[in-house]
Amino acid sequence: MKYDIIIVGSGPGGYVAAIRAAQLGKKVAIVEKSELGGICLNWGCIPTKALLKSAQVYQYTREASQFGVTISGEVRPDLEAMVKRSRAVAEGMSKGVQFLMKKNKIDIITGFGKLKQKGVVEVTDGTGKKSEYQADHIILATGARSRELPQLKQDGKKIIGYREALTLPKLPASMIVVGSGAIGSEFAWFYNTLGTKVTLVEYMPNILPLEDEEVSKQLERSFKKEGMEIYTSSSVESVTVEKDVCKVKIKTASGEIQKEAEIVLSAVGITANIENIGLEELGVKTDKGKVLVDAYYRTNVEGIYAIGDIVPGPALAHVASAEGIVCVEKIAGLNPEPINYQNIPGCVYTMPEVASVGMTEKEAKEKGLEIKVGKFPYTASGKASAAGHKDGFVKLIFDAKYSELLGAHLIGYNVTEMIAELVVARNLETTGHELIKSIHPHPTMSEAIMEAAAQAYGEVIHL
Amino acid sequence: MKYDIIIVGSGPGGYVAAIRAAQLGKKVAIVEKSELGGICLNWGCIPTKALLKSAQVYQYTREASQFGVTISGEVRPDLEAMVKRSRAVAEGMSKGVQFLMKKNKIDIITGFGKLKQKGVVEVTDGTGKKSEYQADHIILATGARSRELPQLKQDGKKIIGYREALTLPKLPASMIVVGSGAIGSEFAWFYNTLGTKVTLVEYMPNILPLEDEEVSKQLERSFKKEGMEIYTSSSVESVTVEKDVCKVKIKTASGEIQKEAEIVLSAVGITANIENIGLEELGVKTDKGKVLVDAYYRTNVEGIYAIGDIVPGPALAHVASAEGIVCVEKIAGLNPEPINYQNIPGCVYTMPEVASVGMTEKEAKEKGLEIKVGKFPYTASGKASAAGHKDGFVKLIFDAKYSELLGAHLIGYNVTEMIAELVVARNLETTGHELIKSIHPHPTMSEAIMEAAAQAYGEVIHL
Repeated sequence: MKYDIIIVGSGPGGYVAAIRAAQLGKKVAIVEKSELGGICLNWGCIPTKALLKSAQVYQYTREASQFGVTISGEVRPDLEAMVKRSRAVAEGMSKGVQFLMKKNKIDIITGFGKLKQKGVVEVTDGTGKKSEYQADHIILATGARSRELPQLKQDGKKIIGYREALTLPKLPASMIVVGSGAIGSEFAWFYNTLGTKVTLVEYMPNILPLEDEEVSKQLERSFKKEGMEIYTSSSVESVTVEKDVCKVKIKTASGEIQKEAEIVLSAVGITANIENIGLEELGVKTDKGKVLVDAYYRTNVEGIYAIGDIVPGPALAHVASAEGIVCVEKIAGLNPEPINYQNIPGCVYTMPEVASVGMTEKEAKEKGLEIKVGKFPYTASGKASAAGHKDGFVKLIFDAKYSELLGAHLIGYNVTEMIAELVVARNLETTGHELIKSIHPHPTMSEAIMEAAAQAYGEVIHL
Repeated sequence: MKYDIIIVGSGPGGYVAAIRAAQLGKKVAIVEKSELGGICLNWGCIPTKALLKSAQVYQYTREASQFGVTISGEVRPDLEAMVKRSRAVAEGMSKGVQFLMKKNKIDIITGFGKLKQKGVVEVTDGTGKKSEYQADHIILATGARSRELPQLKQDGKKIIGYREALTLPKLPASMIVVGSGAIGSEFAWFYNTLGTKVTLVEYMPNILPLEDEEVSKQLERSFKKEGMEIYTSSSVESVTVEKDVCKVKIKTASGEIQKEAEIVLSAVGITANIENIGLEELGVKTDKGKVLVDAYYRTNVEGIYAIGDIVPGPALAHVASAEGIVCVEKIAGLNPEPINYQNIPGCVYTMPEVASVGMTEKEAKEKGLEIKVGKFPYTASGKASAAGHKDGFVKLIFDAKYSELLGAHLIGYNVTEMIAELVVARNLETTGHELIKSIHPHPTMSEAIMEAAAQAYGEVIHL
């Protein structure tokens, strides 16, 4: 049988594109070699958030007396139980995707998908058997995997990636986390909170190097307050595993040091899965390890599309989903607006949480823009005080001339939920005063957004 | 000395107005008979949120094993410690207001303020001594108090109001809460969570009677699941206190019943403080217990203004603050836009939380509007699953013709922080598709907003 659309990869790019295509009346199949839902659902966004919630609950139990809750005995984190819960949440979500595929009459083809020729996908199943499937449109959504550095080869036991970090059999006494992007920082916070002695190593001058510098500095302070050791402007030169110990040479700004740890977690970014999927054979253009596409995710070869982590742009689940929707809406003859890559929020689910959208202060200044910056600290927020989460702030960057919101940088409790307001605001080109004059409910942390805007314009009340 | 502006009452209406006026160069004094910050800071919004957080932490400790946290001993709520923390948070906030008054060079006059004549406020201090102060503009912001029903006279011991509920010396074995607005529902949830046997009595057919009916029903289900007893369409006929027991006659839909409880909490609304403040003497017009004002909070008497709970409109802290700002901006010769009372968010900080803005479905239908309703349940949210908070949903009501967002009704974890997005969206007349096409970060509960909008338009992905 011939499909309208075959999608290779069932992550948040692929399965969302499949559902939207089915809604638009297309006959769709999705090819998946492993679990439905891809890395995000099974080995990324979802199971990490489940683990992080467990760590947060553990933190509350440890601090319970501060909230007036008396615990007579001992409190202990049970990593095995946390992992079990995390796996159950991920499995529940994957089953949810299975249900959605069925409901939307999307065929699931199990195996490794590869472009055979225009309009044909070859799928190799677990036994090595190959089958061919035809479609007018083929969308590649094969995602990415953990990047490996030559001096940091993962053995899956002592030198691990995010997959193993999600399912460690027991809590390590010590861990060196290499790379402090979202993945590295989240695991560093998680294990540090549970009691592992964590050392975080970052090549760039700040942890979370893509975030606004003030946010990075605040997170670094919070991490250090909780006992984490942090080396920025530093790189791992070598790792030697001797018996049960990893000996790690780290080049720091002030010379080379040696550290030992039970586990080394490599979180130095990701590599797109563009190998062996037939790109070269069909002449699909790539650059720097990514598939080149236009604003509707069309490659240079007619009928072949690519979305998600394998195309340029931020490798984020919500971006992949949005790309998938635009891609199939265009295929279906609708007139979708191309994605505005300047308005993509990013979140880090550590404690404090981090969320941002748009330009950092540095980027705005480098562009030569005249800006107004407004900042409001959680220490001045009534809700943050009541909740016992006073670490954090909201920082907003406005264009001085047009009052346009250029960027928003938040750190603190709940900010991963609060950032959506600023995405919508930016989408509608909201001005500073429109934010100030939107009545935010009291008492909430979202008031800090209104106050930060007011602070930029000399109208802040609670500072 | 003569002031530009004297404000009577230092709650979130008064003190915010004072700060904004000082920013605009006005010489300001504020009259307060009790604690700076008024009821909100000292006996309302803030200390209740501190208590509710304690109950949430208690709930997490009780459910810790579900999250992989092992507690070997016993967990016990220590109400005294919770109250102590709550009082400390409130005191901290009140000191914050004191600091802000000083920083903005606002004089604090301690005592009971009363209009003496146009331009003159008479203040009676604790010793009964009267002083007079002059100002060009006098803003009344005297707030409100717990409403008393004749059959439910508060004695402060067995039949109590919110003040006593905030500082009970020990956890009561049982409590009957009369009235299920925000205050009644929050205390009912708080005491029920700590182990008190709570009965909630509501005169209207649904608890939280002002909310969308589906939200009320969901909260009722959640409360009942936690063992709370609820009587809707019911009223308390009489309360007799015998020794340590309150005997309460309740008229229910199916006849009169008698219930006993250690404590009865009256939460049947509020009464504006408009007595003995000189309104009659100066001929300031009132109606139904509220001071009548125009869109800039001017009463019928020149130079006399009123804001907050003593004027018509929702009696909410954030409304009082916004009114105070508009009032003084107008006095200062700016051109503030009048408040749009159709775009005021309301929050209830129970678990699940409740937040809403704009029309309920019933209101929209009663207005004869043709609507599209979109709903997305937390059971389908990955973040809600990961967080272990699957109770809840987002419901959005759009105008079918213009796609305008008429109302938003949310129940679930974090919704009190999420509602601000919808206030901003409504402020900018965002359409359904603009919400759908605003990329929300994954995984967050805020995605449920995007999905609810998509559901209204047949584009929902995860349902």
